[in-house]
Amino acid sequence: MSSKWVYLFHEGDRSMRELLGGKGAGLAEMTNAGLPVPPGFTCTTEACLAFFAAGRQFPEGMWDQVVTAMRATEQETGKAFGDAKNPLLVSVRSGARVSMPGMMDTVLNIGLNAETLKGLAELSGNERFAYDSYRRLISMFGRIVKGIKGELFEMVLDRFKAQTKGGRDTDLTIDMLKEIVAEYKTLYRNQLGEEFPEDVWEQLRQAITAVFDSWFGPNAATYRRFHGISDDWGTAVNVCTMVFGNMGDDSGTGVAFTRNPNTGEPQLYGEYLTNAQGEDVVAGIRTPMPIAELERVNPEIYAEFLRLGTMLEGHYRDMQDLELTVERGKLWMLQTRSGKRTARAAVKIAVDQVSEGLITKEEAVMRVTPEQVDALVHPVFDDKAKKVAQERGDLLTHGLNASPGAATGVAIFDSARAEEAAKTGQAIILVRPETSPDDVGGMLSSKGVLTQHGGATSHAAVVARSNNLPCVVGCEDIGVNVERRQFTIGNRTIREGDTLSIDGFTGEVFAGTITTMDADLSREKELATLLAWSDEIRQLGIYTNADYPRDARVARSFGAQGIGLCRTEHMFFEESRRPAVVGMIMARTDDERAKYLGELLPFQREDFEGIFEAMDGLPTIIRLIDPPMHEFLPSRESLIEEVTTLRCTGENPELLAEKEEMLTLVNSLHEINPMMGLRGCRVGLTMKGVTEMQVQAIFEAACRQAKKGIDVHVEVMIPLVTHVNELKAEVTTLRKVAEEVMGREGMQVDHKFGTMIETPRGAITAGELAEYAEFFSFGTNDLTQMSFGFSRDDAEGKFLKTYVEHGILPKNPFQSLDQGGVGKLMAMAVQAGKEARPDIELGICGEHGGDADSIDFCHRVGLKYVSCSPYRVPVARLAAAQAALRNR
Amino acid sequence: MSSKWVYLFHEGDRSMRELLGGKGAGLAEMTNAGLPVPPGFTCTTEACLAFFAAGRQFPEGMWDQVVTAMRATEQETGKAFGDAKNPLLVSVRSGARVSMPGMMDTVLNIGLNAETLKGLAELSGNERFAYDSYRRLISMFGRIVKGIKGELFEMVLDRFKAQTKGGRDTDLTIDMLKEIVAEYKTLYRNQLGEEFPEDVWEQLRQAITAVFDSWFGPNAATYRRFHGISDDWGTAVNVCTMVFGNMGDDSGTGVAFTRNPNTGEPQLYGEYLTNAQGEDVVAGIRTPMPIAELERVNPEIYAEFLRLGTMLEGHYRDMQDLELTVERGKLWMLQTRSGKRTARAAVKIAVDQVSEGLITKEEAVMRVTPEQVDALVHPVFDDKAKKVAQERGDLLTHGLNASPGAATGVAIFDSARAEEAAKTGQAIILVRPETSPDDVGGMLSSKGVLTQHGGATSHAAVVARSNNLPCVVGCEDIGVNVERRQFTIGNRTIREGDTLSIDGFTGEVFAGTITTMDADLSREKELATLLAWSDEIRQLGIYTNADYPRDARVARSFGAQGIGLCRTEHMFFEESRRPAVVGMIMARTDDERAKYLGELLPFQREDFEGIFEAMDGLPTIIRLIDPPMHEFLPSRESLIEEVTTLRCTGENPELLAEKEEMLTLVNSLHEINPMMGLRGCRVGLTMKGVTEMQVQAIFEAACRQAKKGIDVHVEVMIPLVTHVNELKAEVTTLRKVAEEVMGREGMQVDHKFGTMIETPRGAITAGELAEYAEFFSFGTNDLTQMSFGFSRDDAEGKFLKTYVEHGILPKNPFQSLDQGGVGKLMAMAVQAGKEARPDIELGICGEHGGDADSIDFCHRVGLKYVSCSPYRVPVARLAAAQAALRNR
Repeated sequence: MSSKWVYLFHEGDRSMRELLGGKGAGLAEMTNAGLPVPPGFTCTTEACLAFFAAGRQFPEGMWDQVVTAMRATEQETGKAFGDAKNPLLVSVRSGARVSMPGMMDTVLNIGLNAETLKGLAELSGNERFAYDSYRRLISMFGRIVKGIKGELFEMVLDRFKAQTKGGRDTDLTIDMLKEIVAEYKTLYRNQLGEEFPEDVWEQLRQAITAVFDSWFGPNAATYRRFHGISDDWGTAVNVCTMVFGNMGDDSGTGVAFTRNPNTGEPQLYGEYLTNAQGEDVVAGIRTPMPIAELERVNPEIYAEFLRLGTMLEGHYRDMQDLELTVERGKLWMLQTRSGKRTARAAVKIAVDQVSEGLITKEEAVMRVTPEQVDALVHPVFDDKAKKVAQERGDLLTHGLNASPGAATGVAIFDSARAEEAAKTGQAIILVRPETSPDDVGGMLSSKGVLTQHGGATSHAAVVARSNNLPCVVGCEDIGVNVERRQFTIGNRTIREGDTLSIDGFTGEVFAGTITTMDADLSREKELATLLAWSDEIRQLGIYTNADYPRDARVARSFGAQGIGLCRTEHMFFEESRRPAVVGMIMARTDDERAKYLGELLPFQREDFEGIFEAMDGLPTIIRLIDPPMHEFLPSRESLIEEVTTLRCTGENPELLAEKEEMLTLVNSLHEINPMMGLRGCRVGLTMKGVTEMQVQAIFEAACRQAKKGIDVHVEVMIPLVTHVNELKAEVTTLRKVAEEVMGREGMQVDHKFGTMIETPRGAITAGELAEYAEFFSFGTNDLTQMSFGFSRDDAEGKFLKTYVEHGILPKNPFQSLDQGGVGKLMAMAVQAGKEARPDIELGICGEHGGDADSIDFCHRVGLKYVSCSPYRVPVARLAAAQAALRNR
Repeated sequence: MSSKWVYLFHEGDRSMRELLGGKGAGLAEMTNAGLPVPPGFTCTTEACLAFFAAGRQFPEGMWDQVVTAMRATEQETGKAFGDAKNPLLVSVRSGARVSMPGMMDTVLNIGLNAETLKGLAELSGNERFAYDSYRRLISMFGRIVKGIKGELFEMVLDRFKAQTKGGRDTDLTIDMLKEIVAEYKTLYRNQLGEEFPEDVWEQLRQAITAVFDSWFGPNAATYRRFHGISDDWGTAVNVCTMVFGNMGDDSGTGVAFTRNPNTGEPQLYGEYLTNAQGEDVVAGIRTPMPIAELERVNPEIYAEFLRLGTMLEGHYRDMQDLELTVERGKLWMLQTRSGKRTARAAVKIAVDQVSEGLITKEEAVMRVTPEQVDALVHPVFDDKAKKVAQERGDLLTHGLNASPGAATGVAIFDSARAEEAAKTGQAIILVRPETSPDDVGGMLSSKGVLTQHGGATSHAAVVARSNNLPCVVGCEDIGVNVERRQFTIGNRTIREGDTLSIDGFTGEVFAGTITTMDADLSREKELATLLAWSDEIRQLGIYTNADYPRDARVARSFGAQGIGLCRTEHMFFEESRRPAVVGMIMARTDDERAKYLGELLPFQREDFEGIFEAMDGLPTIIRLIDPPMHEFLPSRESLIEEVTTLRCTGENPELLAEKEEMLTLVNSLHEINPMMGLRGCRVGLTMKGVTEMQVQAIFEAACRQAKKGIDVHVEVMIPLVTHVNELKAEVTTLRKVAEEVMGREGMQVDHKFGTMIETPRGAITAGELAEYAEFFSFGTNDLTQMSFGFSRDDAEGKFLKTYVEHGILPKNPFQSLDQGGVGKLMAMAVQAGKEARPDIELGICGEHGGDADSIDFCHRVGLKYVSCSPYRVPVARLAAAQAALRNR
């Protein structure tokens, strides 16, 4: 008995998303809910996987089931596929488990050929429409199923459009369309060496095959890799009776959201294009009217659509993204799915829906992604700087505010070049007439996207919103010339390499750079509400990595509950402290070093005073000096060059002597693998006085601030511990110096001594370390480096990219914690640490502390807190709450 | 009730070594066996530890017990401590659990003062002797108990000796001795601001305290650290009635071994000095006569001593190291202990004793240390080169062959400078008049030791033998001038920095360098026997790390059962292959690279053919290319210098362009932490064709040799795997290419594909790796680097030394496997690997494979084999047998 590969729409429901894909499940659900959905059926994702498993062959029985389903559809519609009198036409669309906008391909008007064309013309009483539909079929089929370049068809079309007065596709005459169809067929034959298939079943078979094939097409693969979607899901194929929005002015097509996807406002939002097919809207070829105007044009249809939209939102308990087509005054629903939305809209909708009683707080917290929260804390343009730019006349134009956020970068007119330029670290604004799936790589490499054509639901807008990319579309007044790599607006020409600034919140486009400023969370009332709910739910504490009082204050304003990592070496890098730092390093004796350390002490104390003040009442974890000493000295390579040059010229022998001396020092500190050299606690253990000075500065600062009424909770953290004896020795020194200082000051401050767990051996021997450490902080950057044997500095630019691209590694382990390896070490260390010291305080201060998946892991493994950069604190608050809900 | 801190000799026995120390237990055993041991007692090692625990105070009750024991000793000897008429004199000596020669201090003649001096003179009828003993007491007490510099006493003595005809201490007159005593007392007072203690109990108390204190003296601490002896053992103190070898010509003192400690020949071996105290022999001040001559001088004493020695050897079932003193014709035994011996002697004695039925084969295997086996495979001088040196007149002199082995190095006349110079990697021959415990550091930093004075049991000889250090002593004809850093022999002067060669087998000293040659195991018949017994006992296979057929043959001759690591990159470093290697690295396209790989293929194939031939019948594990690519290119620093110079001078623009191009390439390959960069399997996975070429070469070579009748067992090993997908991809390539080659050649060769476990993540995920790996080989060099986060290149020269010196690390983890950390990872990987693949082949190919402690671990953790360098194979065979016996 063969499997069931094909489901009629009324055979499915929303729960069958994995099998039928998102679109198929939505069509099934709508059909069964009695909504006006054109009849059709879905070939399952399992059929897709079976297709690939069999070496790109339909699985046994599938084609028969397709034919049977077509017969059922014929019955329901009263039309017949390939029938010259009353032809049934269908669309063939992809539909994966999650929406992959623009990535999968669609073919409309399947079932048209020279015969059925006549039937359609007669039946519709509209020969022009019939030919328009036929030319669309040939070009779509040629392009998508057969891989002919779209521009070739466009060139033909543009030539005829140029002969019309209006220059638009609706201005084409019926004769022109007939000629176009003839030219398209010739083009098809010339390109492929075969005729366009007039056999409608052949059209259907090839179209379904093409949809399956597109699952492993390069754009889809890129998208999946970027979004972490498994190759093993496959795509479904939806075959749906055609309804026509291009049958005249009583027809049209539109896409709309039940709420505004940019702002979250609870009102219908979308676009409608009269006498057009859906592809015209998506491709941004003509600029559509706002959906609200449909109320004026066709109030009955509008009211009906509004009613159905509200019903679907209630049904799905989420904002819906709808596709509608009006065929000669009849409304058809072609799609419903949860609508993509901007970060701000996501938050507002979730919070509103809780107020409306539609969803719970917990659901609201799960509805917003960490990335969306991140988008809300991204910089916006500084108001004054923007005003200055306006007054200076740098405001070039307004487009549609397609995706929020502000961005500045150099204009690049080609996606491939944008990808190249981004590799050098350049900030890019990608400028295109419009975008297509081929542009995704370039878009993701850019800081912002600007297009001449298209609306709020065009490809560029959808991709940008999904990717937190500031985006302005539909700037029809900029004449983009890709060939010459420039655009002109009025008398100004912006060339490739010139700087642009775009405001995705307002749609403004500026020449030049505009200062950006931090997001103001205080304005994000709904976000504050959502994060407050998150705080109620989450069990993980959210700390921050902050080296300066300024950072500490920002993080606190974002809700940080402590400092998880305050690096003390940044303080050593400041220019004013350089001579003392160099002196300390060069010291030949302990006494000489003590002199320089004495000079550094007041600086360090002052630094810590500021931090303690900013963190009044909250814990502050300070890490002792960590980097290799040579980082504080000039580069070896430059010194070799300088010395060689000075020797060669013979000029300035004093300078030469000085440089030679420095080179000797630098050489003596040179390390082959500095990441694993003399750094971390190894410095304190081999350069007497360094640890002592730092601890003295910390405790003097703590005591001074405590005396001023500041509530100080200091935790001193020893880096790079790999053997218990290192920790033992350092903690002994710490305790001694701290007690001395507190004794001298005549007071006690709340304090803990602990260690980073950042070498594999440290993790393995955590039980021993816990004897001396009151807390562990997982330094997962180094732990990842050493566990993998990946030097991050070397790997990311070189083989790691290849590894991720070739699927050797599922993810970059520096971005998302490697739970299968590094995570196992952490779990071992957590267990051993808790066994040895039940009240041990456990946290993470690697960059993973701000990554949602890693936060989920940290929740599961039982950490007390995660520490991340100040701007990731809101993200982490949400992610921690989601982790708590997910693992309830 | 207070503890028992003090044991009379007859209260103890040999089983109480931990409590009474080796010497104390030996004295107790001899006493109870009825041997002539002067009465006395032992303060226990527990007393020593309690002394330190109480802050350098005798534990409660100890002193009372000492007094009681002294009373018992008085009773037994019929003498009284401090009695002016019949004074009891005692020696106070250290005695730890294991012998630490020269490290601990001894004070003789305790109990002498101005009063008892007279009694001793009367009683002995020898006033000269009494004064001689007194001056010895004052100087020893001053030096050892009070820390006065020995030279100060020597200067006084030398001044008086200079006034005699003979110039020796025996030539001093009684009046001179009286003056010396007076001067010594003045010296003592001037140095310390106090009088020499005339109270004999005070002498005893201070002497015992000094022995305890010496446990933490710097020399003892250095020795313990070097030999891995715990600080927690403590030392016992032996208080023993004095017997006098310096009471005239019918008295004397000697040390002797029951067998020859250099050769193992079963005959009494040692030295005897008439009319002297033991310290004279040990210090090498006068050159003693061989013990055999005692037979002529005093046949009765000799016979008695021989009888007692044989008895003791039978009693202890091991060769004994004895101290004797003859006092006016009566033989006293002062010590027995297992004698230290050269490697050759250890092996011969163990094998002989099995033949004699004294011990079992298993005991014989446990009697020889791995280090001793190592000493036997050390190089000796090339016979011809030595003959040439002799003919050239470079043979300077003959000394005593105190410790075997041949060494060449620059002469250094000072231990501190030797330590310094050794840090630069220089080979040193330390030249001293004689050595003292202060010289141990310098000796251990040297390749060989040469002294002017002293005999086969002098400090220099004992320390050298214990440390496998070639050593020649007693070259009295070289006039060492430490001040001028030179020695003169005949008309030749050797200055510091000149090269010397010493032959520790023969005692020859040469000017200049002499070529050394490999040890000839075929001459070591007893060793062959011992290793054959080891082979019967051990469970671990012994493989070797060999890159060349020559190494493979040597290892095989030493008993290697396979190659555990054949590095393929060494083949790339050869000059003739350099252009192709550079071309391969610089290739811009896969095709271009393929061209260079094609050039390398025949070279690699030829290399492997040689290896397979040498290993006929045994497994050969070949590792694919491992090091970072830049290692095959010129140094970046030199290129910067060259380019800078060429730019500066403006000469030779073509050369400049060429160098600039190379610098660009080198810069592009430059890595900040190359150890964790693009190397290992990462090369194969990112540079297409490299893996393929290597595997092709391996299998073509294997097939060709198999066709010639060679029995090939090849295992291909993938380095630096950290994620299962790396292994999966590489194994897929391996399998494909191997099958292609074998298909083409029309035959199969026995093969396996496996991986190194050398990153922590690899070890953690070993269960996953075992799915694709037929064998694991632990690369513990890298595994140690990454687990600790220690770059070996950087750590060993910098902080690691400090760490070991300060006891932060018990051992250098690159020398002896870190069982508590790295070992845990290995154990996890072994377990997971066996669970996933029960027949997985497990081995180790890091340098630890030749380290005895690490081999013991490998045995316990269940590896199949250890692989080590060819010259360590015999050592590993023994160590593996010992591991099997130890863990039975």
